[in-house]
Amino acid sequence: MRLSQYLITTSKEVPKEAKCISHKLMLRAGLIMRFAAGIYSYLPLGYRVLAKVTSIIEEEMNQVGAHQLLLPFVQPAELWKKSGRWGNYGEELVRFKDRKEADFVLGPTHEELITQLMKHQINSYKRLPLTVYQIQTKFRDEPRPRAGVIRTKEFLMKDAYSFCQSEKEQMTIYEKMKQAYERIFSRCLLNYRLVEADTGPIGGERSDEFIALAPLGEDRIVECEECEYVAKLEKADTGFPTSGDRCPLCKSKIRIKRGIEIGHLFWLGEKYSRSLKATFLDRMGKERYFVMGSYGIGVSRLLAAIIEQNHDEEGIIWPKEIAPFQAAIIATSPETFKVAQEIYLRLRRGGLDILWDDRDLSPGVKFNDADIIGIPFKIIIGNTFLKESKIEIKTRREKTTVKVKKDVVFQKMKELVQNAK
Amino acid sequence: MRLSQYLITTSKEVPKEAKCISHKLMLRAGLIMRFAAGIYSYLPLGYRVLAKVTSIIEEEMNQVGAHQLLLPFVQPAELWKKSGRWGNYGEELVRFKDRKEADFVLGPTHEELITQLMKHQINSYKRLPLTVYQIQTKFRDEPRPRAGVIRTKEFLMKDAYSFCQSEKEQMTIYEKMKQAYERIFSRCLLNYRLVEADTGPIGGERSDEFIALAPLGEDRIVECEECEYVAKLEKADTGFPTSGDRCPLCKSKIRIKRGIEIGHLFWLGEKYSRSLKATFLDRMGKERYFVMGSYGIGVSRLLAAIIEQNHDEEGIIWPKEIAPFQAAIIATSPETFKVAQEIYLRLRRGGLDILWDDRDLSPGVKFNDADIIGIPFKIIIGNTFLKESKIEIKTRREKTTVKVKKDVVFQKMKELVQNAK
Repeated sequence: MRLSQYLITTSKEVPKEAKCISHKLMLRAGLIMRFAAGIYSYLPLGYRVLAKVTSIIEEEMNQVGAHQLLLPFVQPAELWKKSGRWGNYGEELVRFKDRKEADFVLGPTHEELITQLMKHQINSYKRLPLTVYQIQTKFRDEPRPRAGVIRTKEFLMKDAYSFCQSEKEQMTIYEKMKQAYERIFSRCLLNYRLVEADTGPIGGERSDEFIALAPLGEDRIVECEECEYVAKLEKADTGFPTSGDRCPLCKSKIRIKRGIEIGHLFWLGEKYSRSLKATFLDRMGKERYFVMGSYGIGVSRLLAAIIEQNHDEEGIIWPKEIAPFQAAIIATSPETFKVAQEIYLRLRRGGLDILWDDRDLSPGVKFNDADIIGIPFKIIIGNTFLKESKIEIKTRREKTTVKVKKDVVFQKMKELVQNAK
Repeated sequence: MRLSQYLITTSKEVPKEAKCISHKLMLRAGLIMRFAAGIYSYLPLGYRVLAKVTSIIEEEMNQVGAHQLLLPFVQPAELWKKSGRWGNYGEELVRFKDRKEADFVLGPTHEELITQLMKHQINSYKRLPLTVYQIQTKFRDEPRPRAGVIRTKEFLMKDAYSFCQSEKEQMTIYEKMKQAYERIFSRCLLNYRLVEADTGPIGGERSDEFIALAPLGEDRIVECEECEYVAKLEKADTGFPTSGDRCPLCKSKIRIKRGIEIGHLFWLGEKYSRSLKATFLDRMGKERYFVMGSYGIGVSRLLAAIIEQNHDEEGIIWPKEIAPFQAAIIATSPETFKVAQEIYLRLRRGGLDILWDDRDLSPGVKFNDADIIGIPFKIIIGNTFLKESKIEIKTRREKTTVKVKKDVVFQKMKELVQNAK
């Protein structure tokens, strides 16, 4: 991409409304723009990152045999009345009437719809187990949207649902999904904890939450300093324990960490299949309720969590799989423009995703922009090229520099990208 | 994909509610499921097709330098009040209040939001022209949803917006976009016409519409039997002309065709930039309004249009770029199961997207399923294999058969896919 033809709008000013680092950096790097409280748009640069994260999630979901589909965002209220959530989901559920006075809701989650779908599509145990997922916009009328895309009203979510004939079968899928989540969050270079959690408005028998550690997080995690003990404090648990209290397992000291919920697994059992009368015929020809699980990842929120853990004074440091571009080419003087162009075309032909900063601006501005938006490598054609005919490649994360001849730049870049985090 | 592990739900019954061929076939092939009038879900097979069409659109949009982004689906009413459409869009616009009594709308289109975005992101002519697009769910409270996904309340749309400094610059983009649309619809194997049309609730100075010819279409197209003359009759034009009337250009006979609107280009000019006060500084430092265009493609509707033009008695015939799978492997007797598996693994390793029908069902059922869901090739391991050690490859569209030895099946399939429509 030639930057002169792209939409990049970085800013040096720290926006007043932003309190936490990810929110500040997402605004300063020009990834998002706010339209109302908790309602954001993703600018082209932000969308690129969102699409990369989405691809990782799709790959890992497909890998465990989940099939992608798309459910409606606007849902008939009838199904919510059957499940009982029409009455008890609370004010976060947006309800409206269409022109014919029929009740609808904006989907905050999709358990009712997917259960209804399977009720009509699957009638025999022979088709089970079956896991499906979608990546879709959700809406929850949050009372207090905060911290940029961490707590919003509208957000992108990956929601998966599994349908099984037995608890045992369901357990296998639940564990497979847990492992898929671990791979997803590792590829995002996230430091996270897996803890048991409340089931909340989704309901069901148990739930497990993935929490990315971050100082701004709303979730409080208790960890033992010595053993493997880790737990989440629910909102009701106020005041205790505090750092310095003792671990319930080994009596060593505990510490309290904060974190952001990035993934949630729900063991639903028969909650929704019973209320919506969704059954299949088992091996003996007997009608039985589906045993279900549901599995969410807050896709937009994931970007903020990654930034919280991957940044420095200069800006974002994207993991290589998520960076909007793999490298930025910067020529520091007009006489190296042609060389920059030649390298740009060569790298692009080789399949690398390159941002060539061809704007008529000072090298300083270009370096700062590449740093704040978090590009993993800067390919600099400057004084070193004029003096020694060598191109400098700087890594964003490790801040190391290598010098290479022009004709091996592609080879070197491939190697660096391969070995990068 | 092994079919035994996939969700495919074909049906022989013609659903009562479906009047037109695409609606019938989409339900019978198990691509979609209805949740309410005009509100559908895409089952895994339908989603695969939707994703293929989406990829084609993304490729062609990126090709003409449009940058993908994502705007919010739920929009603050404030901007609609500024543009005047809050009052005059009519009942198709869903309005609701959030918990703080603020007004919002469900996005039926996004001119207001993108204009507001550019107003804040772009201040100089140096950044122009700029074209952006998104692929996103829209909602319009249609009074009469009909014909499956052809006229729905919720649908997937590609909407692009261009921002220019002058009418001349805008003209270049408008023409480029027209050409991109022609490539998209050609890759979808659509027979279409390009006609001038009303601007409707989007407004602006002129508009051009792409209409796919189909008997069920709501749009009436007048074509001359001799010259290039083609035009669209607006709803107000009732009763005339009729087939047999004379062409206004060459006086030959005209005929009336029906069609489905699949794409629409709007020359907006300064309509939205004026009402939302969106300006940039020109070369002379003078403040000027953006000259805008907007460009839509009804993505979900496109599937129906493709089916209307690409089907036979047995079912859908997908163009190769859109088919959910490139080929289906069918073994007609248990003794060829191992060979089927071997071929499946070989083709998959070679990068082909294959559906292996490994279900314990009769060959007839498998042939019918592959045909109705529109898979371009059937790879049959049956009597011919047992007698002559040869595998049959049948093409769905041309209904031709070739016989090949097992070890050249991959080579032959690659060649057939390459040359297919």
